[in-house]
Amino acid sequence: MTRYIYLNGTILPEEQAHVSPFDIGLLRGYAVFDLLRTVGGRPFLLDEHLERLHNSASQLGLRVPVSDAEIATAIGELLKLNGHAEATVRLVLTGGVSPDGMAYDPSAPTFFILTHDLHEPAPELYERGGRLVTELHHRELPKAKTTNYLTMLRNKPRTAAADALDVLYHDGSLVSETGSASFYVVSEGRIRAPHEDVLWGTVGDLVLRLAAHRFPIELGELRLDEVFAADEAFITSTTRGVLPIVEIDSRKIGDGEVGPVTRELMAIWTRHAFGEDGAKR
Amino acid sequence: MTRYIYLNGTILPEEQAHVSPFDIGLLRGYAVFDLLRTVGGRPFLLDEHLERLHNSASQLGLRVPVSDAEIATAIGELLKLNGHAEATVRLVLTGGVSPDGMAYDPSAPTFFILTHDLHEPAPELYERGGRLVTELHHRELPKAKTTNYLTMLRNKPRTAAADALDVLYHDGSLVSETGSASFYVVSEGRIRAPHEDVLWGTVGDLVLRLAAHRFPIELGELRLDEVFAADEAFITSTTRGVLPIVEIDSRKIGDGEVGPVTRELMAIWTRHAFGEDGAKR
Repeated sequence: MTRYIYLNGTILPEEQAHVSPFDIGLLRGYAVFDLLRTVGGRPFLLDEHLERLHNSASQLGLRVPVSDAEIATAIGELLKLNGHAEATVRLVLTGGVSPDGMAYDPSAPTFFILTHDLHEPAPELYERGGRLVTELHHRELPKAKTTNYLTMLRNKPRTAAADALDVLYHDGSLVSETGSASFYVVSEGRIRAPHEDVLWGTVGDLVLRLAAHRFPIELGELRLDEVFAADEAFITSTTRGVLPIVEIDSRKIGDGEVGPVTRELMAIWTRHAFGEDGAKR
Repeated sequence: MTRYIYLNGTILPEEQAHVSPFDIGLLRGYAVFDLLRTVGGRPFLLDEHLERLHNSASQLGLRVPVSDAEIATAIGELLKLNGHAEATVRLVLTGGVSPDGMAYDPSAPTFFILTHDLHEPAPELYERGGRLVTELHHRELPKAKTTNYLTMLRNKPRTAAADALDVLYHDGSLVSETGSASFYVVSEGRIRAPHEDVLWGTVGDLVLRLAAHRFPIELGELRLDEVFAADEAFITSTTRGVLPIVEIDSRKIGDGEVGPVTRELMAIWTRHAFGEDGAKR
């Protein structure tokens, strides 16, 4: 089936949707993006993802060249044309074409929207929990969702060998986030998470707000040794919701089982995102 | 005039040279490149640049899909077709097309070659010297020439406002390199430069070898305070050769004039690259 793409104002079949080899998103990695998912075939948390996209763009001195309403319309058309059961929707904004590979015109960016089939983790993973491996790394421009995933992708063979979901970034002392998700621990009943120099997580932010009346929440510095001493750990992301982490660098977190606070957050999230019966999960 | 591009084995007019919006070089910044210049219309230091490209690629688990001989032939054809007086030649290698925006096939990379008109700094700049501004930043994967220029490009308004050529990266104590060049100082007759965690500079490396019998050379840690106390400073790069730096963050280096060691290195470089009379400069 032909996949359709929105590119600079037009919806085109994939075969006709071309990016210039002179695009500065390609030549200099000067690009931001955002990724949202559908629930029941409709964009979920669209406003939040658009807000984050605008914020990422402004940190690069870029502006999304079309209105939020036009984006919403384009997403709706793509979802209809591409016929996913559930989809992820990727919004990509670059600095545009750069004939000399360095200069670019912020008033002529490249903006495109792709859709993909949604791939959620297997239900068993939510039952038994997943693994992470640590990596000494600090994301450049961490408050912006740039397209720079060099360190995460380079580590793919290592995460695969460890049967891990992702890398957990730390600076030798403090942890920040994983390659593609927000990171949290539970210690003595409190939910703790790094706050500075991490990307704002649309799911994590909402989960914490939904859970704020149930659990004390501490946002601030989180040390690696505190992570290993925590009772529970979990990640949040658009495609994974709330996912328990039971092992980091082959060391068990707590007793190595999915803990009660994480279970409750998973339930809260499932109810919120998919309805009372969690029918969609 | 139509510009021609080499893309995955074929030379095409720019209008027909398309990169997929699903390219992981675009979606995840997973790409390396190299840039060489011509002298007298012929590729200069081609072997060195190819060696660096292969080294960059291997650090991302990628391989250039064609032989060095095929690259040399393609460059020759592009230079003939594109008719530059002198050119820069850009070799770009990405992880290839990624339908889901994360997985990619290392055996099917995207490899393309672009040429640009060469723009050299004005001769006056070599006479009076240029400025830099410092920036707290450490390049990710510094021994690879990745396409990640986020920090350099974000700083363009600041460097322009300061009439500076580039940003000089430091970690709060040690300096490393500029956004697009290698960095050196001269202190008490010795040439000093950072060595670890910086990109190997094809011009800088050769200049130091040519000058090794004339000046003591110390490669190792270089502190920011040592930079400000130095007698001279200069940068080296493919398009700029040896270029004196006389001011950093509005502070004069030495007496703020181009120093004698830098002058001699400039002369050594000009003779080597352009012949006895430096006819090309």
